[in-house]
Amino acid sequence: MAWPYVADDTSDPLLAADAEVWQPFTDAVRELVDACVQSDVDADDVRAAQADVEAALARLGKARLSTTLGQSGTVGSRRRAWGNPVIGVRNPIAPPLHVDSDPAGRAWSDFHLGPAYEGPPGLVHGGVVSLIIDQVLGHAVGAGRQPAMTGTLTIRYERGTPLGDLRVEAWVERREGVKIHAGAHVLGPDGPTAVAEAVFIVPRRFRDQLSDGIGAADQGSTQG
Amino acid sequence: MAWPYVADDTSDPLLAADAEVWQPFTDAVRELVDACVQSDVDADDVRAAQADVEAALARLGKARLSTTLGQSGTVGSRRRAWGNPVIGVRNPIAPPLHVDSDPAGRAWSDFHLGPAYEGPPGLVHGGVVSLIIDQVLGHAVGAGRQPAMTGTLTIRYERGTPLGDLRVEAWVERREGVKIHAGAHVLGPDGPTAVAEAVFIVPRRFRDQLSDGIGAADQGSTQG
Repeated sequence: MAWPYVADDTSDPLLAADAEVWQPFTDAVRELVDACVQSDVDADDVRAAQADVEAALARLGKARLSTTLGQSGTVGSRRRAWGNPVIGVRNPIAPPLHVDSDPAGRAWSDFHLGPAYEGPPGLVHGGVVSLIIDQVLGHAVGAGRQPAMTGTLTIRYERGTPLGDLRVEAWVERREGVKIHAGAHVLGPDGPTAVAEAVFIVPRRFRDQLSDGIGAADQGSTQG
Repeated sequence: MAWPYVADDTSDPLLAADAEVWQPFTDAVRELVDACVQSDVDADDVRAAQADVEAALARLGKARLSTTLGQSGTVGSRRRAWGNPVIGVRNPIAPPLHVDSDPAGRAWSDFHLGPAYEGPPGLVHGGVVSLIIDQVLGHAVGAGRQPAMTGTLTIRYERGTPLGDLRVEAWVERREGVKIHAGAHVLGPDGPTAVAEAVFIVPRRFRDQLSDGIGAADQGSTQG
């Protein structure tokens, strides 16, 4: 796999101004996602709301980024993470989680999941649990030092994870060359609901970068 | 865990009429999610679009379901699945997948993931891969017979999964009492990108139901 890059030379103040515009908009779309699964208005109201949404789409469709947000910045740039489906402030799919981490290889987040994340009745979808664990494991493993991709991820579901206020914690257990062993769990009101073990791998692209500096050899794209 | 129920006595024609209203609306909100991560219009257009979204929210906020969609029907009802974050036609978080299955315990889906599902640049978020695998494994295991919840799920990521057109396949390997062993993989243009093994468990609630008929003893709620 190769990691395509487009340099993001946007200044910090411009990025902050951009966030001030897009963050409240994305929050409003998150409320719309919630309304999709929870509103009980009649058909005429839904059709009128659809006309409103189409008006918004017409405005937003006037210009489109030439690449995805994930490809629009150097690694670690805030804009790169804006499109992430777990933490992205510009992605309404993301709750979003705010993840803290420390250099010792720990990461954690207190977060809330509403009915748009439901699997079994009243419970978080098991796959959403794995999505969040995968993301926060990545923060623990990276911990500000290097990107790593999940090699294997094993999740043991102890009990159902209730919708509502939750916490996730992840930690690095040991590093062995390009392999990093890590663990994580999701905590509900009654304790751990899911426990995970993972092996992360430092991608070849970043092994090159770590040893050779910039390493611009594999700038091709595998994007679909 | 207990599974709360609210009987869904909505007739088939009424459900179909409801789907005709909510499905196109949710599709429009999906486009809005895509616009959040891909639009490049200026701040004034984003603010105007936000006013449109807030108008839609005001219409949809007039009435709210008394329970989640997942709790609004008997197991297997279409409405129950409408809120699911992978297959739900009323959930803009869901791509949504249309999953086929057969009684032999196989399930499959051809689907498309756009930039809202991006993790590493140009690639599907590893946790989104696990989310989709978890859902389709559930279809294979259920195959129209009984609900089952994931006990353990192990995913081996073989290579990055490119954004775009993808396929997922899942299959039951063997059943041992309340445990069901199953496998799955996601296929990209160059073959399998992730391979999964899982053990599913038939929830106690449904073991009772299978042996005792309705089994209304544990109708309490653990919902958060």
